[in-house]
Amino acid sequence: MSPAFPDPALGEPFLLTPGPLSTAWEVKDAMLRDWGSWDDGFRAMTRDLRSRLLAMVGDGAPAYDCVPIQGSGSYSVEAMLGSFVPKDGKVLVLANGAYGLRAAKTLQYLGRGLHLLDKGDYLPPRGAEVAGILASDPAITHVLAVHCETSSGILNPVEEIAEATHAAGRKLLIDSMSAFGALPLDVAALHCTAFVSSANKCIEGVPGFGFVIARKDEIASAKGNSHSLSLDVHAQWETMNKTGQWRFTPPTHTVAAFLKALDLHEAEGGAPARLARYSRNRDVVVEGLRGLGFETLLADRWLSPIIVTFFCPESPAFDFSRFYELMKGQGFIIYPGKLTVVDSFRIGCIGRMDEDVMRRVVKAAGFALSQMGVNSAAPPAAALEERKKLAA
Amino acid sequence: MSPAFPDPALGEPFLLTPGPLSTAWEVKDAMLRDWGSWDDGFRAMTRDLRSRLLAMVGDGAPAYDCVPIQGSGSYSVEAMLGSFVPKDGKVLVLANGAYGLRAAKTLQYLGRGLHLLDKGDYLPPRGAEVAGILASDPAITHVLAVHCETSSGILNPVEEIAEATHAAGRKLLIDSMSAFGALPLDVAALHCTAFVSSANKCIEGVPGFGFVIARKDEIASAKGNSHSLSLDVHAQWETMNKTGQWRFTPPTHTVAAFLKALDLHEAEGGAPARLARYSRNRDVVVEGLRGLGFETLLADRWLSPIIVTFFCPESPAFDFSRFYELMKGQGFIIYPGKLTVVDSFRIGCIGRMDEDVMRRVVKAAGFALSQMGVNSAAPPAAALEERKKLAA
Repeated sequence: MSPAFPDPALGEPFLLTPGPLSTAWEVKDAMLRDWGSWDDGFRAMTRDLRSRLLAMVGDGAPAYDCVPIQGSGSYSVEAMLGSFVPKDGKVLVLANGAYGLRAAKTLQYLGRGLHLLDKGDYLPPRGAEVAGILASDPAITHVLAVHCETSSGILNPVEEIAEATHAAGRKLLIDSMSAFGALPLDVAALHCTAFVSSANKCIEGVPGFGFVIARKDEIASAKGNSHSLSLDVHAQWETMNKTGQWRFTPPTHTVAAFLKALDLHEAEGGAPARLARYSRNRDVVVEGLRGLGFETLLADRWLSPIIVTFFCPESPAFDFSRFYELMKGQGFIIYPGKLTVVDSFRIGCIGRMDEDVMRRVVKAAGFALSQMGVNSAAPPAAALEERKKLAA
Repeated sequence: MSPAFPDPALGEPFLLTPGPLSTAWEVKDAMLRDWGSWDDGFRAMTRDLRSRLLAMVGDGAPAYDCVPIQGSGSYSVEAMLGSFVPKDGKVLVLANGAYGLRAAKTLQYLGRGLHLLDKGDYLPPRGAEVAGILASDPAITHVLAVHCETSSGILNPVEEIAEATHAAGRKLLIDSMSAFGALPLDVAALHCTAFVSSANKCIEGVPGFGFVIARKDEIASAKGNSHSLSLDVHAQWETMNKTGQWRFTPPTHTVAAFLKALDLHEAEGGAPARLARYSRNRDVVVEGLRGLGFETLLADRWLSPIIVTFFCPESPAFDFSRFYELMKGQGFIIYPGKLTVVDSFRIGCIGRMDEDVMRRVVKAAGFALSQMGVNSAAPPAAALEERKKLAA
């Protein structure tokens, strides 16, 4: 597979970021023509996109439908919240990072009821906690869980959250932006009302649209809920089912790229194969950087195969901006951290790259440290103290 | 310039549609790499995009700013309405086709006050009418005008609408989706609060984002107005000015294509040169199809250089679906009409094509008629009666 991977020697850096990410050449090559969005050919592409995504959600698929939404992934989150939460609904948002907090903020814009469980930078919301809150606040109609919170890289325990939600008779919405396509998401087992993801994550397409996968009965009864014409899932679904077209101009080239990305996803062996490759990417980079003295924020049990947070070294010789540039100069774009308490950076494990690439990332990091004169990549004691909160 | 134009002989049909449209090879070629949206390189691209668009609005530019918005052009219309019309505002929507009516529907979703002037399929809203309505309804705070209503192809009289709006002390919002980049839009002369357009119209980029160009003081005071986090112009502007980044994942490849499209736009001679080319496209196709017996919906004075509506022939041998396929078989994707009273179709004049291409369109239409056994392309008497409404 390696020859099709981007090569920094050719001038294109690897994006070690959780989307936009490095995509295969064939995916970008599929954008080299124009499509009329009204034409039969493009309508067939839209149909194809919807049915192939739906085929990825497990045995529950017949009860669900797929509705693509133009814009970034956060637009799809907003579309899901605005369309499935009725105007008098109330959502328990389980936040442990930027994306959970963004969902809470979205609900405030929408004027929907909000119960925010804010676990801080990374601590996972647990099933028992969710059960307790749902028991104590009967006004809550929906629970919003973030599958993989990419601001820390934690893989949240959606199964126990789903169980608690279902047991309490509430409806589950999942932001599976950076997880779907690699991590399992069995909608029927999770009793999931709806979830969202986007083109430029584990399917490895280019950015331009997201998609909502939701129970058909929930979509049908979502009519009139949405605060926004553009982000009305019901209206998009109704028009798409009737005419085969998107209501407003679709990102035609992005759609073409996505279909090619789906081909590659299937050829690789679907979500299980992708999960295996991303997990190897994670294992190699974590083992390698630990070998240099770096420490991960999370204990192994919580590390996702999507993106990993590392503490910045304590050494005064370490400067993140310089580290970033030194990595970039070697063909790797890394990602700054989002922790509020201690300095950190992130390495994404998804996109068109494999463990060989990750070995080069480790080597590049070692070279960057030596250039800066950093002898030990060990984090400050405060970082390790911080980490104990999770282990406890 | 001809060699860079798409060639149906190579398997790629021309899109005679008002966006998505046929784009230059170089524009698509610019999408053949991945960008990290957080990286300096992409931030410079965003800065470049904003300043180059702003440079196109005339002497008023320093008082304005450009805010790109992910999604289709209609998302930008919704973002403009939701951000600049306060919650207790009221908008006079000047509708003469699908896009005006869509703006009215958007306002209903948003719960903003609406005064709809619905002129039907194509009759233009005139300055005196606007003045009369504004005098009689003091609650109206804003006027929404559609620059070129692509459902009929009419070029609405924005200058006289702007004059009436300014004289009455109200604020002007313009949907210049299909016009900006070719037709003049002097924001200062029009006393325009804000207008929108999108990547895949007269700049000839690929679809994926739109943009709002608005007075800086209006953006600054739009804080807190928006009904939507995703479509909040103020929030996007504030973050972009502070960090150089889009708030949520941008369509990186579409942005790269757009910058190349701006290069080609400038190299051609900017909006005046593009207007000249599109006008020649229109003149050639109108003259040629009239030569075959077709009639345009609009009298010459109202014909835009963007898209032209033709009546379907009266002949019982004419079948639109067959005509569409016969044109497509010759490499031309045409566009069905949107008139409610009589059958029609549309030919777009924008995109990467010139008058030579339009001559081939005329020839292809003649061939299609002969294949169907249509001897005369003359429209039914009802169509000509319809047209008299405008001439009167």
